[in-house]
Amino acid sequence: MGATLGELAVRFGLELRGDPGLEVDAVATLAGAQPGTLSFLANPKYRRQLRDTRATVVVLAPAAAADCPVAALVADNPYAAYARIAAVLHPPAVAPAGIHPSAVVAGDAVVADSASIGPFVVIEAGCRIGERAVIGAGSMVGAGSQVGDDTRLAARVTLYPGVRIGRRGLIHSGAVIGADGFGFAPERGGYVKVPQVGGVSIGDDVEIGACTTVDRGAIEDTILEDGVKLDNQVQIGHNCRIGAHTVVAGCAGISGSTVVGKRCMIGGAVGVVGHLDIGDDVAVTGYTMVSRSLKGPGVYSSGMPAMEAADWRRVAARVRRIDALAGRVARLEGREPGADDPGSEQE
Amino acid sequence: MGATLGELAVRFGLELRGDPGLEVDAVATLAGAQPGTLSFLANPKYRRQLRDTRATVVVLAPAAAADCPVAALVADNPYAAYARIAAVLHPPAVAPAGIHPSAVVAGDAVVADSASIGPFVVIEAGCRIGERAVIGAGSMVGAGSQVGDDTRLAARVTLYPGVRIGRRGLIHSGAVIGADGFGFAPERGGYVKVPQVGGVSIGDDVEIGACTTVDRGAIEDTILEDGVKLDNQVQIGHNCRIGAHTVVAGCAGISGSTVVGKRCMIGGAVGVVGHLDIGDDVAVTGYTMVSRSLKGPGVYSSGMPAMEAADWRRVAARVRRIDALAGRVARLEGREPGADDPGSEQE
Amino acid sequence: MGATLGELAVRFGLELRGDPGLEVDAVATLAGAQPGTLSFLANPKYRRQLRDTRATVVVLAPAAAADCPVAALVADNPYAAYARIAAVLHPPAVAPAGIHPSAVVAGDAVVADSASIGPFVVIEAGCRIGERAVIGAGSMVGAGSQVGDDTRLAARVTLYPGVRIGRRGLIHSGAVIGADGFGFAPERGGYVKVPQVGGVSIGDDVEIGACTTVDRGAIEDTILEDGVKLDNQVQIGHNCRIGAHTVVAGCAGISGSTVVGKRCMIGGAVGVVGHLDIGDDVAVTGYTMVSRSLKGPGVYSSGMPAMEAADWRRVAARVRRIDALAGRVARLEGREPGADDPGSEQE
Repeated sequence: MGATLGELAVRFGLELRGDPGLEVDAVATLAGAQPGTLSFLANPKYRRQLRDTRATVVVLAPAAAADCPVAALVADNPYAAYARIAAVLHPPAVAPAGIHPSAVVAGDAVVADSASIGPFVVIEAGCRIGERAVIGAGSMVGAGSQVGDDTRLAARVTLYPGVRIGRRGLIHSGAVIGADGFGFAPERGGYVKVPQVGGVSIGDDVEIGACTTVDRGAIEDTILEDGVKLDNQVQIGHNCRIGAHTVVAGCAGISGSTVVGKRCMIGGAVGVVGHLDIGDDVAVTGYTMVSRSLKGPGVYSSGMPAMEAADWRRVAARVRRIDALAGRVARLEGREPGADDPGSEQE
Repeated sequence: MGATLGELAVRFGLELRGDPGLEVDAVATLAGAQPGTLSFLANPKYRRQLRDTRATVVVLAPAAAADCPVAALVADNPYAAYARIAAVLHPPAVAPAGIHPSAVVAGDAVVADSASIGPFVVIEAGCRIGERAVIGAGSMVGAGSQVGDDTRLAARVTLYPGVRIGRRGLIHSGAVIGADGFGFAPERGGYVKVPQVGGVSIGDDVEIGACTTVDRGAIEDTILEDGVKLDNQVQIGHNCRIGAHTVVAGCAGISGSTVVGKRCMIGGAVGVVGHLDIGDDVAVTGYTMVSRSLKGPGVYSSGMPAMEAADWRRVAARVRRIDALAGRVARLEGREPGADDPGSEQE
Repeated sequence: MGATLGELAVRFGLELRGDPGLEVDAVATLAGAQPGTLSFLANPKYRRQLRDTRATVVVLAPAAAADCPVAALVADNPYAAYARIAAVLHPPAVAPAGIHPSAVVAGDAVVADSASIGPFVVIEAGCRIGERAVIGAGSMVGAGSQVGDDTRLAARVTLYPGVRIGRRGLIHSGAVIGADGFGFAPERGGYVKVPQVGGVSIGDDVEIGACTTVDRGAIEDTILEDGVKLDNQVQIGHNCRIGAHTVVAGCAGISGSTVVGKRCMIGGAVGVVGHLDIGDDVAVTGYTMVSRSLKGPGVYSSGMPAMEAADWRRVAARVRRIDALAGRVARLEGREPGADDPGSEQE
């Protein structure tokens, strides 16, 4: 869908440097742009690509505007401005309102007339599907679940019974919301399954990635607050509460009953053990193990960067024997190695 | 479904302190309980919530019973007793017996009359579906597979051909059982696919989490013994054997041909390399890499707890140079740094 | 499907030591073999099983042939030869050509007559499905996607719109190709979604494991070159390019915009941060965090092997205080601990 630069400037309140009558109909990278496209510069790393871009217009910050060889849309937050313009140039495909004839919809389910229910969808008893909601092909909506206005489920999403999703959400394919939490009571060398009778409560503007799993609560609900963004293959255990506008990157796992604060950034492949309390505005860098509660704001890490394998083998062997090394230092200091030497305390 | 305290005490052989005529019809947490609910105390951490609970009755251990302000059901293993009672108060939804008209069932498949086959299910040739088994909507059961009595597949489960599941199992949505193992023979800079011709053999009382994958064997079967519990997003490689009553927490991965013993506890995000032998009664704490066979019983770890990022960067840089630090200690000791100083051995 | 040893020797150009008229009809492990089966010896670890094997014939290297108690098919690369023979003895099930009556196929989709479209498949507008391609039950093929000749999608695969897959590919169940990349522009404590308008471009001979996710590009395509093999539960972020014949083991994650070279081997559970450049012929061992670009060829690691938990707790506590230990060494050396002592540099 095309737009003139003048229209974009007015619509998004941006300063335009250039011809307002020029048209663009697609976005492009600075390096890959062709005439007729709009690009952006947000990450300074790509600044040197600005000079040679063939884009018709670039969205960028005031400080970069002077270097722009083509038209510029100047924004204080160029990435956010780009995001909004891209949604105009590339609107999501419109799903046709109505229920596909192959779908199986319970008689007492309430489906808005403006909602789109795809082929091979199952909607069980007592569900409510909101205005303009989209339930993608092959998705399953369990009994008593609710999907809010303008929320979209891609193809092949599973909502177990008792899952409530707010408005303007987006759930990607393969995601499973509301499966049983992992609860078993040990008994005589085996286990008794603990029924998981809570549900899942998801706020507005939540995005959940492909093959991400959010377990139902054991007794009360697992909660994702407004604006939470979960990447692909994230695992959220039962009874967790994830605070508003927290983002969790791919392959991270948060174990049961942990509370994560608002506006946190959990990096890729991070593991958080259960029953912890992570404060607001905490960032955890990728590949970190969180085994204690963390106060916010703050940035936390424990990922060890890769080395050449031969060097790492030597390092790892030394690390395994660091106690002996510390003992040798204590002896050099004229002290007995032991519990009272500095650094021996365990946490 | 409601029950009187007297009925519960008799049915589960528990001592009741309180009025046997009181009724409960739901479970609740100690803190969230309303009259008419049953709660429990198993984790001492929640003991201070006991005093103020509004539950009608609490399941707890003998030592805690004196402090209970309401009726008490006294159990040696209160968590297991709670689990059994919760299953009475919150029975799983009953799936209607019979085959949904949309399902595609091969003519020679044997499906018990008491089994429930949901919408859009595919059951291929030669399958056997046991008594009271449930095949959830959109699930696929590959040729020659078997689902035992009382085993339930949630919606959107995939069984490849040649997967045999015992009785009373529960497989969650998105799980994929029997996909090809990752087997490729290197040849001239590329790979030749190694056909994966084994199956998967799963015992009784096995639970498999959402989006968990269990690969078929390369030649013989991949095996999950009785009582194995796999959490969400677990990966089990081809030819593995997981021993009875072993539990594997979320996001853990066990590489091909590894044998894990009985009653093991594999923590979240643990990675186990292939062709290892893990003994019975081994516990591996979360976020640990297992790269050697481990004897049981025992507890093993290698996860590094998160620190403040600035501190961790300093630590990681030091760790990378630990060899130099050890060399300085050796020089202080009057020795040459090198292969014969203590701690330099590689394993 | 059976074959004589003579046929196999001729077809695959192998030296046969033994009776060419003997027949085999299945593969077997050396230890588990019965008469009538073919086994192989590639990993020297299994050599001692050769002596007692009951296989009819063993595929092995010239150096091992003398020890073979039964017929031998001698190959320079016995594992690759075995792989090819196994594909003859155990051919994949043939999917019937044609479109299952339950499938929903857009009127303008081009589906080859020899292709097999399973039950409950959805093929959206503008798709092209090649000769002998197989779309497994319940799979979804989004608008404008292409599936090349002889490529097979197992049951319950999702291709979002704009995914192009080459020839002879194999995509396992639960895989999701083309979901939105994780792109959000921060703004005033929340996020604006960045539309993900690129697609996914996949070469020939690519295999993608169960529940693996490959995100679509933000602007241009995410690319998997020819011969790439991804194991189960792998996550490939938006804009990545994975070089030809690179293999990625289970549970690994590669963050957005990272370029991985050709013939790399990425181990299980490896995490690679975004915007990196990994050279050709790089191997990364399992459970390693890659946070910087890596030159190839080379082998890189950072996974810490498991220890007994009590020992590891002591080690981890020491590691957290390694800065203090280094300071003590500096003092013993008569220097002030600080930025200028060896080993204190941060990277």
